[in-house]
Amino acid sequence: MTAEPATRLDVSDSRARLDTLQALVRDELLRVNGVIVEQMESPVELIPQLASHLVAAGGKRIRPILTLISARMCGYRGDRHVNLAACVEFIHTATLLHDDVVDASDLRRGRQTANALWGNKAPVLVGDFLFSRAFQLMVRDGSLDVLRILSSAAAVIAEGEVLQLLTANDSATSEADYFRMIEGKTAKLFEAAAEVGAVVAGRTPADVQALADYGRSIGVAFQLIDDALDYSAEEEALGKTVGDDFADGKVTLPVVLAMAEAGCEERAFWHRVIEDGVQGEDDLATAIGYLTRHGAIRATIRRAEAYGERARRSLDRFGPSPERAAMLDLVDFCIERAY
Amino acid sequence: MTAEPATRLDVSDSRARLDTLQALVRDELLRVNGVIVEQMESPVELIPQLASHLVAAGGKRIRPILTLISARMCGYRGDRHVNLAACVEFIHTATLLHDDVVDASDLRRGRQTANALWGNKAPVLVGDFLFSRAFQLMVRDGSLDVLRILSSAAAVIAEGEVLQLLTANDSATSEADYFRMIEGKTAKLFEAAAEVGAVVAGRTPADVQALADYGRSIGVAFQLIDDALDYSAEEEALGKTVGDDFADGKVTLPVVLAMAEAGCEERAFWHRVIEDGVQGEDDLATAIGYLTRHGAIRATIRRAEAYGERARRSLDRFGPSPERAAMLDLVDFCIERAY
Repeated sequence: MTAEPATRLDVSDSRARLDTLQALVRDELLRVNGVIVEQMESPVELIPQLASHLVAAGGKRIRPILTLISARMCGYRGDRHVNLAACVEFIHTATLLHDDVVDASDLRRGRQTANALWGNKAPVLVGDFLFSRAFQLMVRDGSLDVLRILSSAAAVIAEGEVLQLLTANDSATSEADYFRMIEGKTAKLFEAAAEVGAVVAGRTPADVQALADYGRSIGVAFQLIDDALDYSAEEEALGKTVGDDFADGKVTLPVVLAMAEAGCEERAFWHRVIEDGVQGEDDLATAIGYLTRHGAIRATIRRAEAYGERARRSLDRFGPSPERAAMLDLVDFCIERAY
Repeated sequence: MTAEPATRLDVSDSRARLDTLQALVRDELLRVNGVIVEQMESPVELIPQLASHLVAAGGKRIRPILTLISARMCGYRGDRHVNLAACVEFIHTATLLHDDVVDASDLRRGRQTANALWGNKAPVLVGDFLFSRAFQLMVRDGSLDVLRILSSAAAVIAEGEVLQLLTANDSATSEADYFRMIEGKTAKLFEAAAEVGAVVAGRTPADVQALADYGRSIGVAFQLIDDALDYSAEEEALGKTVGDDFADGKVTLPVVLAMAEAGCEERAFWHRVIEDGVQGEDDLATAIGYLTRHGAIRATIRRAEAYGERARRSLDRFGPSPERAAMLDLVDFCIERAY
């Protein structure tokens, strides 16, 4: 790998692309929000309070958009996809609440995290509540296929999260370990979200599989870019602190790649900051320097592009439509985004 | 309320009663254990490691026993109740893992808690995994009725747990608040466990309702006794520390009742130890003294007995059978138990 200039992604471009995507499903997305607000309700006021803190903060809503657009591209004209998109977002939100507790994060989507505001106890329990609500909504929908897909996804996500815990501070983490982890913790829900859209539309197993592949591929691409951004983004656009992964000792692909190329001195550095977790003020800058020297950020982005290409190819079997075009745009967004 | 002698429950009696109950469903309970061990499996080794730590510690298995005995009393002769009993135990185990994180407990079932051994992160995620596995198992069973009952139960349990968080350190907690909380956090899963047994047996809505009522009533009784034991048990039999609730500032019924009778000096005491959470070495003994003076432990046990009576009456509509006799015994166990 060769030296690379600092990678800068254009915020306004990726924001515009996301806006276009959201516009295509605006009405349905509003109804998804309605379902979310309605289903967060509880006589225990802290539950909607805490949940709405995270939900109101916005987020990109990529996962529910996947369900909505996938269903529409598959010719679905009913209402079920709206509720199921809300289920997907609920599972995602529950995961975020638990993640932030596990990571002891302070900032998410440009706001203080629920655990920073309420401590660790309530977010664990409210996460459980949202997770249960997602299943109640699915049961009301009544499709055992959908329930199977999303309950399996939830188990795989939890496995991926545990893997992340195990690879943290472990400089022996391999590329294979890394991909196994992100396929679980991130890509599985993207996969399930797109798959469910094809299932409600009653498409053939081959079409369902193609959309599952599409979702998984952009999920992997999305996480690769996320991990690149943690070392290269503008903090304001990102809505969270740059260098969070580094501070947590998480071994993401940029670090795996840079460690593979490291000489003696660099190896000692990575051992200290990742394995021993001993970090000083300048260490993030030093790490970014090493990543840049070995082209690790650029190589990570290239992997994301390859997964993006795989996602695009999964859509080959579907005829042209505004939804298909939007799903191709979504691939570009996942790769070019700056937040 | 009048002064009461220290309440002492006979360990050997309640242990014998539980043994008899477990013997009646021994074969099925062994199969439930088999399903549990099989379903905990994951390529991520920490998951079965951590989960089996809790599962291997035993526990009373009252909730899965409820599903098994209820199904059999209702004339069910198939296999589904075994898997569903495992689901119930999985939901319970997930709840325990998250509870112990929330409470920062050190001891459970006479062993160190998962969070004491592995920290807070893994138990949160492994709890999520077990919860997801429970839903996967239910989906495989294929009954939307069962899925509806257990997903609703899971949401209500989470609400009850949040309520417990909100009433902690709040000396204004009323008897109504307390019952609302324990009906959620404890009784709901007992209710669902018994209800599911009647559902797999295909009984009438009235029979299903009667067993749901039975489960809820013994669930409330069980928790009332639990809360009495926290101030009165032999630590060795209990398998956890006496005074845990007190140390956590939890406002359980014994405390609610004693505070209602408190004079000026006692009120100041409760305010300090519960509201301010300022506790010294002798405070647990002082608290037990106040509870005894006002007969609060005995009154709590009497409430449990009333719920036990309600549970017994729910079984009136069912003809005599060894299972019905066992369910009546279970009422006695829940009230007379010393652990």
